[in-house]
Amino acid sequence: MSRNLTMLTDLYQLTMINGYYKSGNHNDMSVFDVFFRKNVCDGGYTIISGMDEVVEYIQNLKFSDADLEYLRSLNIFDDDFLNFLKNFKFTGDIYSVEDGSIMFPNEPVLTVKAPLYQAQLVETAILSMINFMSLIATKSSRVCNAAKGDAVLEFGLRRAQGPEAGLYGAKAAVVGGCAATSNVLAGKMFDIPVAGTHAHSWVQKFDTELDAFRAYAEIYPDNCLLLIDTYNVLESGVKNAITVFDELREKGYEPVGVRLDSGDLTYLSREVRKILDDAGYPNAKITASNDLDEYMITSLKQEGACIDSWGVGTKLITSYDYPSLGGVYKLAATASREGELMPKIKISENPEKINNPGYKKVVRIYNSYGKAEADLIMLNDETIDENLPLEIFDPVYTWKRKVFEKYTIREMLVPLIKDGKCVREKKTVHEIKEYAKEELQSIWDQYKRIKNPHIYKVDLSQKLWELKNNMVASKKKF
Amino acid sequence: MSRNLTMLTDLYQLTMINGYYKSGNHNDMSVFDVFFRKNVCDGGYTIISGMDEVVEYIQNLKFSDADLEYLRSLNIFDDDFLNFLKNFKFTGDIYSVEDGSIMFPNEPVLTVKAPLYQAQLVETAILSMINFMSLIATKSSRVCNAAKGDAVLEFGLRRAQGPEAGLYGAKAAVVGGCAATSNVLAGKMFDIPVAGTHAHSWVQKFDTELDAFRAYAEIYPDNCLLLIDTYNVLESGVKNAITVFDELREKGYEPVGVRLDSGDLTYLSREVRKILDDAGYPNAKITASNDLDEYMITSLKQEGACIDSWGVGTKLITSYDYPSLGGVYKLAATASREGELMPKIKISENPEKINNPGYKKVVRIYNSYGKAEADLIMLNDETIDENLPLEIFDPVYTWKRKVFEKYTIREMLVPLIKDGKCVREKKTVHEIKEYAKEELQSIWDQYKRIKNPHIYKVDLSQKLWELKNNMVASKKKF
Repeated sequence: MSRNLTMLTDLYQLTMINGYYKSGNHNDMSVFDVFFRKNVCDGGYTIISGMDEVVEYIQNLKFSDADLEYLRSLNIFDDDFLNFLKNFKFTGDIYSVEDGSIMFPNEPVLTVKAPLYQAQLVETAILSMINFMSLIATKSSRVCNAAKGDAVLEFGLRRAQGPEAGLYGAKAAVVGGCAATSNVLAGKMFDIPVAGTHAHSWVQKFDTELDAFRAYAEIYPDNCLLLIDTYNVLESGVKNAITVFDELREKGYEPVGVRLDSGDLTYLSREVRKILDDAGYPNAKITASNDLDEYMITSLKQEGACIDSWGVGTKLITSYDYPSLGGVYKLAATASREGELMPKIKISENPEKINNPGYKKVVRIYNSYGKAEADLIMLNDETIDENLPLEIFDPVYTWKRKVFEKYTIREMLVPLIKDGKCVREKKTVHEIKEYAKEELQSIWDQYKRIKNPHIYKVDLSQKLWELKNNMVASKKKF
Repeated sequence: MSRNLTMLTDLYQLTMINGYYKSGNHNDMSVFDVFFRKNVCDGGYTIISGMDEVVEYIQNLKFSDADLEYLRSLNIFDDDFLNFLKNFKFTGDIYSVEDGSIMFPNEPVLTVKAPLYQAQLVETAILSMINFMSLIATKSSRVCNAAKGDAVLEFGLRRAQGPEAGLYGAKAAVVGGCAATSNVLAGKMFDIPVAGTHAHSWVQKFDTELDAFRAYAEIYPDNCLLLIDTYNVLESGVKNAITVFDELREKGYEPVGVRLDSGDLTYLSREVRKILDDAGYPNAKITASNDLDEYMITSLKQEGACIDSWGVGTKLITSYDYPSLGGVYKLAATASREGELMPKIKISENPEKINNPGYKKVVRIYNSYGKAEADLIMLNDETIDENLPLEIFDPVYTWKRKVFEKYTIREMLVPLIKDGKCVREKKTVHEIKEYAKEELQSIWDQYKRIKNPHIYKVDLSQKLWELKNNMVASKKKF
């Protein structure tokens, strides 16, 4: 399923590219930053994902004849420009964080440095990929945090925003910590674990629930997990399950457990746990599903629900309470007529919407225990001498200052694409998941709180702070 | 972009199919209904869409060798079953409403009648298509209702749940009433209008805003719509726009208008309207965008905002406040050992989760003005004699009854697929949009209220009501 998404862009990108081409400045080297202004679910962090998708997209960029025919039919573009598009190739550089990195509001997570017309074309598709994959990876991370080590299974395909949102969302869910997905195509495409047993329809198909359970156990004796809420959990489901478990045990098999998909999960799971224990099945697991998310799992755990693994559907695959990460793509610098890269800014009545100008980098500061203490956005040519103390300050309340004596730093943005070619080794989804787990361990728990987390520091270097303030002041003179 | 989504299913569908195959009942004719329990955004209606996607999916169903290799690698399925899958073909029937139909909770919108194993495989993908396309078509319809005839433009790709959600979502948005999309690939694939002019980056690229506007007007003199909020709308943007509009007019062109993308849209649009009018541009349009949805548009209109067309992004393409339509797929009937289609039911502690059993049809009752008055779910073999009065009753409060004397009826579910082949003529998106518009006109305004709409009647025939109640009573005996 290699996707050519060259035409997946906003029309205004093409009208602007045509405009730049006609104005003769289309080849000016330009720098655009991708950043977001709020964490997913107003949490304390966001896991950035989607780099594989960006690389595939960039490498497949090519306008087909049919694409150009369609564009011609719009009667906006002339032959000269369509011929120019025919030879379109992405020749620029893309720097980004590693897939699975923990990032914070207002810092670049990906930077495109390319001739203006190329950088402009790719805005929309890159945003749609990074925004969605990061959204679901982060939501999944929040759900897995709430599950406190229990397995979380991604079951959301049927409620996803279309087939591919279910497919790529399943991958992002595993990046964020899910143990497996129900999505078979995701399992095949991304080499991630798949899970699933049977639905209510299986039970309905047979004359009785007991017949249905027996048939299932006969076919899957070593993987017998029974859905017990088709008719009545306590009066029928768990009783029939135990009958079948007893029969299995006689044949030398141990059952996996039962699944609940409706009703009061706290009450039912506690009752079912007691019944299973009393019947001699203390190791039989209870899996639960039904509109779960991080808030519901937290609440069920607080109430003492006896649930061992969590099937999470709609609310994870759509990030239901926060269904879009608002990542933006802003011009930060562009070449002057003399070819020098000049910083650019967009002013807004909302101060938080003013971007950080210039070609930049992001540095993470770690203390001697290896915990991340703050991020610092700097101009690309600035350096830090780790042998000297490092003072950082809040860009708004500039009297809030902190000095690091013993620290290490790490540059977060590393090359992904150079001269149009991918220069980063592709990781497996499992590797990305493990990296995201390490990243989460590198930040303090107070940033992972599900509600009202502590706010991680993202500061500007003195030089960038001055540049920004001077530019705002001068633009304000209009 | 023909998509083979055969493997886009939940693993439990395949474990169940294997189970049915091993149990020897996989070929039993079965009936599954797709229905939803709540309207999108808790509104008064839902527009059903996604039939083109379902047809494409069904027609491309085929397991490739690579698919089967992957399934083999899971160590769940034996060679006999994998060979069976190799020859998988959908040979059943699918009945559905016309794409763009207005439907209501708890009535079938699509019914699959097929051998059990086939009907089971297609559940997940069909739900993911119908749920998403219907979600966005309905959300779009709500936004367009709020705009009261003004053009609504779909701008959401960058914030969609991935590239394809943006692509198919753009189509659904047009079905629901949007005039155009910014999405070029959607324009090409679905033959829908595209729109777009320029972004802030265009303005930032030039030394001054005036330079940028001049360059744009020179290239697009007959389609000059300028984004005026890059620096300051009233002090800079609208003034520079008027300078350029004056220059255009000298060359014989009339400007299209201006766009606002931030700030207080009511205040700014009213001020900009006055300035444009005073400068001699009463026909210049004001387009606005920035986190709009049906609630915000209603509020802006109430405040007297002077906005002529609405660019709607994140909140439409993700249906932000209601990001998933909870459509389900439930077994309604399956063949007995003797081959007779027997009704099936799933009991639940939540009475509203008990499905309507049996192979059914949905009839819409129209009054003599052509307005829809109620829907009636009936068993498939029931008929209505339109020459006789028709009494319907509420399935819960059975004393609530209504008798129709002069009425016409229409069967809502019509053949889509027969014996595995599409039997419905494909409509253009424009035709689907026009049909959805007619459908909306056929229901009273009180069902279209954005908040607290009147609830449309969906009743059961006497025969179906009795069947359901008898089945619930007998299952309750467990």
